[in-house]
Amino acid sequence: MNYPTSLLQLIRELSRLPGIGPKSAQRLAFHLFEQPREDVERLAGALLEAKRELHFCPVCFNITDKERCDVCADPSRDQRTICVVEEPGDVIAIERSGEYRGLYHVLHGSINPMNGVGPDQLHIKPLLGRLSPEHEVILATSTTVEGEATSLYLQRLLDPLGVTVSRIAYGLPVGGSLEYADEVTLGRALTGRQRLTRPGQG
Amino acid sequence: MNYPTSLLQLIRELSRLPGIGPKSAQRLAFHLFEQPREDVERLAGALLEAKRELHFCPVCFNITDKERCDVCADPSRDQRTICVVEEPGDVIAIERSGEYRGLYHVLHGSINPMNGVGPDQLHIKPLLGRLSPEHEVILATSTTVEGEATSLYLQRLLDPLGVTVSRIAYGLPVGGSLEYADEVTLGRALTGRQRLTRPGQG
Repeated sequence: MNYPTSLLQLIRELSRLPGIGPKSAQRLAFHLFEQPREDVERLAGALLEAKRELHFCPVCFNITDKERCDVCADPSRDQRTICVVEEPGDVIAIERSGEYRGLYHVLHGSINPMNGVGPDQLHIKPLLGRLSPEHEVILATSTTVEGEATSLYLQRLLDPLGVTVSRIAYGLPVGGSLEYADEVTLGRALTGRQRLTRPGQG
Repeated sequence: MNYPTSLLQLIRELSRLPGIGPKSAQRLAFHLFEQPREDVERLAGALLEAKRELHFCPVCFNITDKERCDVCADPSRDQRTICVVEEPGDVIAIERSGEYRGLYHVLHGSINPMNGVGPDQLHIKPLLGRLSPEHEVILATSTTVEGEATSLYLQRLLDPLGVTVSRIAYGLPVGGSLEYADEVTLGRALTGRQRLTRPGQG
């Protein structure tokens, strides 16, 4: 007695997805088996359609289903500011903040020598092609070791080009309690303190 | 700026799967977007084929792609013993042990009033139709609250039919350390102790 071939095949395909081990894949396969046929067909259809419709924006490497992505195609965005992020999901996260009106550049990863990801595997060259000395580049990679390494690499690469380079601020997350902040974050929050009054005021 | 429609659709479909929240669905969708087209097509194909080929065995409600499942179709299996389990995965788990040569009956769930699952939602009636007084029924539902409730319900239901009813043994898992066993398991292991020598022996 063993699993039927088509079930085995489905479990094998599902367990290739990131974060889904053999046990989860088995559970998902059984779940899918118990769903109405329309639901499974809709999932399969969504997979195929997403793969057919979506591609990289040739300018910023965000994911889009148009010729250029919504941000690059919008002439009202500030064309002089480019925010560099690791993944397409980061673009959405920043857009949700409502604080940014410039353009983006998606690297699709971060420098991670342990996993064999060097600068050449990231979309860095096309970024250089977009820059002139009038540009400001905001490095908004993660504050992980890999994100910091990527930020440092880009900083050194961009410095000689004469563009303005900045890094997103470190500090306490909004709504965060001082008591629970780790010491590195707290140290960075102190170093990066913002003056609220100017000397001689008040 | 928002996600492209086909990406949103894929994220929505993926987040309907059990154990996959909106964040995981987004991560999966981005991952799938970056895979070669053949891989995505193979996953979609596996979904459709599994849904098309697989169905319940009409006898034991195991999942099969044949008319009856491998176990029910095998005349060499002990036809007088029926092991009742919650899910198709449990059949595989028991088969792997190599200790069982009888038949199965898959309930597809356990009694769980909190989730609105009563005995009528489980495949219990077809089990009754399979039984004669010569049968032994082994209740191999989980040792969770729901599994125990299901086992107790079946025990009371089957008692008047004159079939032999047994429950899988409670005890220490093999390779388990006494020190780390919880007190309920340890209590059950003591109550269910097996005599190794007979009085007067040795």
